[in-house]
Amino acid sequence: MNDHERHYLFDCATAGVQGLQPYQPGKPISELEREYGVRDAVKLASNENPLGPSPRVKDAIQAHVAELARYPDGNGFGLKRALADRHDVDLKQITLGNGSNDVLELIARAFLAPGRGAVFSEHAFAVYPIVTRAIGATAQVAPARNYGHDPAAMRAAIDDSTRVVFIANPNNPTGTWLPGRELEAFLAEVPRDVIVVLDEAYVEYVREPDYPDSIPWLDRYPNLVITRTFSKAYGLAGLRVGYALSSPVVADLLNRVRQPFNANSLALAAAEVALGDAEHIARAVHLNDTGMQAWQTACKRLGLNYIPSVGNFISVDVGRPAGAVYEALLREGVIVRPIGAYGLPNHLRITLGTQDENKRAMAALEKVLG
Amino acid sequence: MNDHERHYLFDCATAGVQGLQPYQPGKPISELEREYGVRDAVKLASNENPLGPSPRVKDAIQAHVAELARYPDGNGFGLKRALADRHDVDLKQITLGNGSNDVLELIARAFLAPGRGAVFSEHAFAVYPIVTRAIGATAQVAPARNYGHDPAAMRAAIDDSTRVVFIANPNNPTGTWLPGRELEAFLAEVPRDVIVVLDEAYVEYVREPDYPDSIPWLDRYPNLVITRTFSKAYGLAGLRVGYALSSPVVADLLNRVRQPFNANSLALAAAEVALGDAEHIARAVHLNDTGMQAWQTACKRLGLNYIPSVGNFISVDVGRPAGAVYEALLREGVIVRPIGAYGLPNHLRITLGTQDENKRAMAALEKVLG
Repeated sequence: MNDHERHYLFDCATAGVQGLQPYQPGKPISELEREYGVRDAVKLASNENPLGPSPRVKDAIQAHVAELARYPDGNGFGLKRALADRHDVDLKQITLGNGSNDVLELIARAFLAPGRGAVFSEHAFAVYPIVTRAIGATAQVAPARNYGHDPAAMRAAIDDSTRVVFIANPNNPTGTWLPGRELEAFLAEVPRDVIVVLDEAYVEYVREPDYPDSIPWLDRYPNLVITRTFSKAYGLAGLRVGYALSSPVVADLLNRVRQPFNANSLALAAAEVALGDAEHIARAVHLNDTGMQAWQTACKRLGLNYIPSVGNFISVDVGRPAGAVYEALLREGVIVRPIGAYGLPNHLRITLGTQDENKRAMAALEKVLG
Repeated sequence: MNDHERHYLFDCATAGVQGLQPYQPGKPISELEREYGVRDAVKLASNENPLGPSPRVKDAIQAHVAELARYPDGNGFGLKRALADRHDVDLKQITLGNGSNDVLELIARAFLAPGRGAVFSEHAFAVYPIVTRAIGATAQVAPARNYGHDPAAMRAAIDDSTRVVFIANPNNPTGTWLPGRELEAFLAEVPRDVIVVLDEAYVEYVREPDYPDSIPWLDRYPNLVITRTFSKAYGLAGLRVGYALSSPVVADLLNRVRQPFNANSLALAAAEVALGDAEHIARAVHLNDTGMQAWQTACKRLGLNYIPSVGNFISVDVGRPAGAVYEALLREGVIVRPIGAYGLPNHLRITLGTQDENKRAMAALEKVLG
């Protein structure tokens, strides 16, 4: 194929897709070991649970492995029933996704189009601009307040073209959060023809007394969509399962555009048993609390500023362009995440790991910053 | 929520999604047993491999179950390398999907938009109109020839708005197919700014000498996209993995719009080992050949016409509206697929099962019709 043919075909794509920068995932351990020749690498780059999933998951998978030639239950009955019980909602309020990334994309595909806009904050999760721009809709970016979401700025960014607002609570990669009264005041102000997506991917880790239980709001705000995931505290990132809770009419629309078998059989089975293991979540949260204290102490010792976080990660200002520090850490066998693409060029986002992983990463950071 | 609020929210969705009829999956066995109180139901409704996947899959899954808290390799390096070796293509020509349904949707999202059109045949796979209409693009339906695709009619349906053509070879739910010379003549005629999607979900089952090896065409037709799946002969429908082969420029565009972790870790591992087990595919194809002969014989004995099929299913004309026959078969504990939505209101599509499953379904069909 010559250049002319290449350009000609590229121009056949929609304008949104032609301009799209794909999501940059954290480097997998296998890739680091292959490229850099290091061993026993530590990955603190993707906000994964260092304890893994509930031990019940292994049995659930073995029980379903004989059924892999069957398509999954496209309605996800078992998992939906468990979620409905847990959250006291109706089955018709649930939309299952291939990870919550899938759910975020379904929302964009159901409600956005060229000429429509989505509001989100500076430093917000990278998937919001990606799903917005892929459709050719307009990204309406509100300025941040102390690295976190500013409800007044987000309200001001909403105009007649806006059909979706994305709010992460807490936000990734900053770990910042909004208290319940501020968030509900915002919800009350948003026009009813704007879908408000409250992304609670990290909800299980939050211990702040002012952090809201948002699910009762579904009764008062039919334009509210709450998204959750099994990829973080539940330790099932590899299997891909997330979900949305919303009014039935919004769930109906999301389920129309959903691929009929988007959530795989083993993900459905694993998520259902993982949801029932509260002790495992408690262990993960306890480890996370300990790790957060250790990282805050380490940052103070090294004289590094960080963004106060309620998630399972901490974004640290390394006081210089972070790309070179990231590369030097890779050579030490430690993978973290540079977040220059989030407008934070001097920060590295570090996932809280096990005690050993944290110690290795702290020692490597100290050596590299030197 | 009152009716006014419900309509108001519904109207916030895009026009394409408002008008969308979601895909109707085959009824899962668990759902039939729950609703009808039957036991030991036989499901011949979703073109699944009755032998299941390669026995190597179980070990591959066990080897990866400890890593489930990690995100999948978003580049799918291991599976892509195996596919590149198998098909003698470059890694850059491969796009992985959460099933081939995902790949079909990626193509629609990259190349279709309101005002653009997609050509496909009458009686073609239901996912083509769904992914087209979800985007608000125009479905350009060409009339069929003897239930199968008519290249001349499809060529005539292409106009200046057309950006994608979907051709299934063989087609589901008819089992019809096009020989290589006819298909390549069609490819040579299609304008170069129209993406031709050659959906080969059932390729492993086809034994006809005129059936094409389409992969070498990729070098001559940069607008060609070949899609394949691990859900049919490879017996991995529950895990969700499919792929597209194309020119690198088209693969780049599809990968931009692809969710970064669309294929889960266990699917990647299972598909890689399944691809290497040629003996298992040979067993599945042999069983399928035997089942096809048995069903053709049974149809002749019962005086029923059927559409000659090269897939792992046969669509049978039951000589009356098929919905009532489908319902009666459910009460006998046999699930097949009514295909009225495909413009075939008197046909039932029956997946070829094990010998026992086929016998039970034939007996139930005879009882229900007689």
